[in-house]
Amino acid sequence: MANIRDVAKAAGVSVATVSRYLNNKGYISEEAKRVIAKAVEELNYQPSMIARSLSTKQSTFIGLIVPDIVNPFFPELARAIEDVALAYGYTLILCNSDEDLEKEINYVKTLQQKYVAGFIVASNHVEAEHYMGLDIPIVAIDRRIHSSIPYIATDNREGARIGTEHLLDSGCRNILCMRGPSGLGPADDRFAGFMDAVKGKNIETHIIECPFHFDIAETMVKKILQEVSIDGIFASSDVTAAGAMKAAYSAGIHVPNQLQIVGYDGTMLASQLTPGLTTVAQDLYRMGAMAARMLIELIKGQELTEREVLIPAELLIRQTTRSEA
Amino acid sequence: MANIRDVAKAAGVSVATVSRYLNNKGYISEEAKRVIAKAVEELNYQPSMIARSLSTKQSTFIGLIVPDIVNPFFPELARAIEDVALAYGYTLILCNSDEDLEKEINYVKTLQQKYVAGFIVASNHVEAEHYMGLDIPIVAIDRRIHSSIPYIATDNREGARIGTEHLLDSGCRNILCMRGPSGLGPADDRFAGFMDAVKGKNIETHIIECPFHFDIAETMVKKILQEVSIDGIFASSDVTAAGAMKAAYSAGIHVPNQLQIVGYDGTMLASQLTPGLTTVAQDLYRMGAMAARMLIELIKGQELTEREVLIPAELLIRQTTRSEA
Repeated sequence: MANIRDVAKAAGVSVATVSRYLNNKGYISEEAKRVIAKAVEELNYQPSMIARSLSTKQSTFIGLIVPDIVNPFFPELARAIEDVALAYGYTLILCNSDEDLEKEINYVKTLQQKYVAGFIVASNHVEAEHYMGLDIPIVAIDRRIHSSIPYIATDNREGARIGTEHLLDSGCRNILCMRGPSGLGPADDRFAGFMDAVKGKNIETHIIECPFHFDIAETMVKKILQEVSIDGIFASSDVTAAGAMKAAYSAGIHVPNQLQIVGYDGTMLASQLTPGLTTVAQDLYRMGAMAARMLIELIKGQELTEREVLIPAELLIRQTTRSEA
Repeated sequence: MANIRDVAKAAGVSVATVSRYLNNKGYISEEAKRVIAKAVEELNYQPSMIARSLSTKQSTFIGLIVPDIVNPFFPELARAIEDVALAYGYTLILCNSDEDLEKEINYVKTLQQKYVAGFIVASNHVEAEHYMGLDIPIVAIDRRIHSSIPYIATDNREGARIGTEHLLDSGCRNILCMRGPSGLGPADDRFAGFMDAVKGKNIETHIIECPFHFDIAETMVKKILQEVSIDGIFASSDVTAAGAMKAAYSAGIHVPNQLQIVGYDGTMLASQLTPGLTTVAQDLYRMGAMAARMLIELIKGQELTEREVLIPAELLIRQTTRSEA
């Protein structure tokens, strides 16, 4: 395989000139450009990206840190990020943090050594000290890390308000809110939206805090259904709504005739459930694609026009609610 | 930040000696080892992995090529691969091929330029020419690429046979087989397993070919249910089984009382559906973890004890079949 010295020799210029040409940096005459381009083509020279990383201290890798790629929320984000990254010549490194701070810090350190060009981070850790000292562009997605780090998410408060209003409009008067973990930004925002919708209305509410896990949701709702009588559930994620559906099925409670359920996220899972889950859909593809574009702008040293972006959510009415009520 | 020259200076040895020490290559005296280790510690020196890639022509990146990470089969594989990779100091580059040969070839080329250490590939493309010329270790997962490339998969023929037998044992006599794309190894093997189970028995069968897509499966089964009378479905994936469940729901056909359904894969989706989907489970975590271990052995220049590994499948009986029949 031809190397940069072969190109310089064939073009009759110095290695430094070829390097300036390849990195698009510094002065280079039109004639030199022409002969180098010709040599590159003739020798079928493919610049080693690693060698270029070393000289520019910048690679074309983007690190994506997510809690767990198996949660169906994240593959859809990852997919969008990868599509945009690839279009700009970047490739994606997948990192599952398992919501384990030490693992996350270790990943950040490792990728820094590999000269990653930037990070897109969906982290549950509010103590974001390991991101603060980094001299690498970062975009936070879904969860805010720090006011100094650009951030993109869904307007979760408004989304949850719309979802809860839909339960009210469909006749629910006795509603269980399965809120997400307290202290986690999106979960807190969605809970606030739920409260916005029920406030001042003659609605009985039951609040439980439930992590974004199917099995735990199923177990918690099974217990609730034995204790209280409810006619509606607002869940803070599609996965927990699916757990609630399974619990209702086991208890012989018909959805939506006896119990209506609204989820949150708009993942593929929501559409693949039977009956189809009514859900507040985040525009996951748009969110991932915008995060990737923002990060690439930062990598290229451009100023962002907006450092905080909130994308509206959209209610998708399917079969777990009776909109005609 | 300290570099290799700083370490050499502090230790009073040459840069070449420090390099031999870091790469664990060539002779180096015990005394030199001691002073270098001390200097590395005192200076808090972190070797740049990219610089090491250049000198050894080998990075610690592993490329994972999958058709689409949004299909719930692949995040679970990716998860296992990443866990093992990380334990050995490797990081994972995620590549969605979209079953598009050109995109896949482009990815292989790009990652080769980035000195990726190896590939794990789940490719639909049987013409594997773009993998044959590569001087990089490859492990094929789920789908065989070529007899020269190590391969790990589920024993799909036997798995499908077990799943179909379960429908027969549960009383089904009029069965729809939703086979996967013809020509795709795992799909062909599962179809053969279905045929093994029904052969010579007094069973009426209907065969349709259906890609691993939810929407298409739902549409195809809706049509079938209007045309013929069936009491069982064997689907070649969980996603297509979920589509069949949705079609039955729309047609007012009760699962499992009027129609029993068996899926294939054992993804999270199968357990999150209501009713829970009886499915032939692949041990996805084990498959991904073994693929990663095989690849890392190849990267380290070791011989594999087995170049083709078939993992047994396991029937998970849930609520879409009536095992008591």
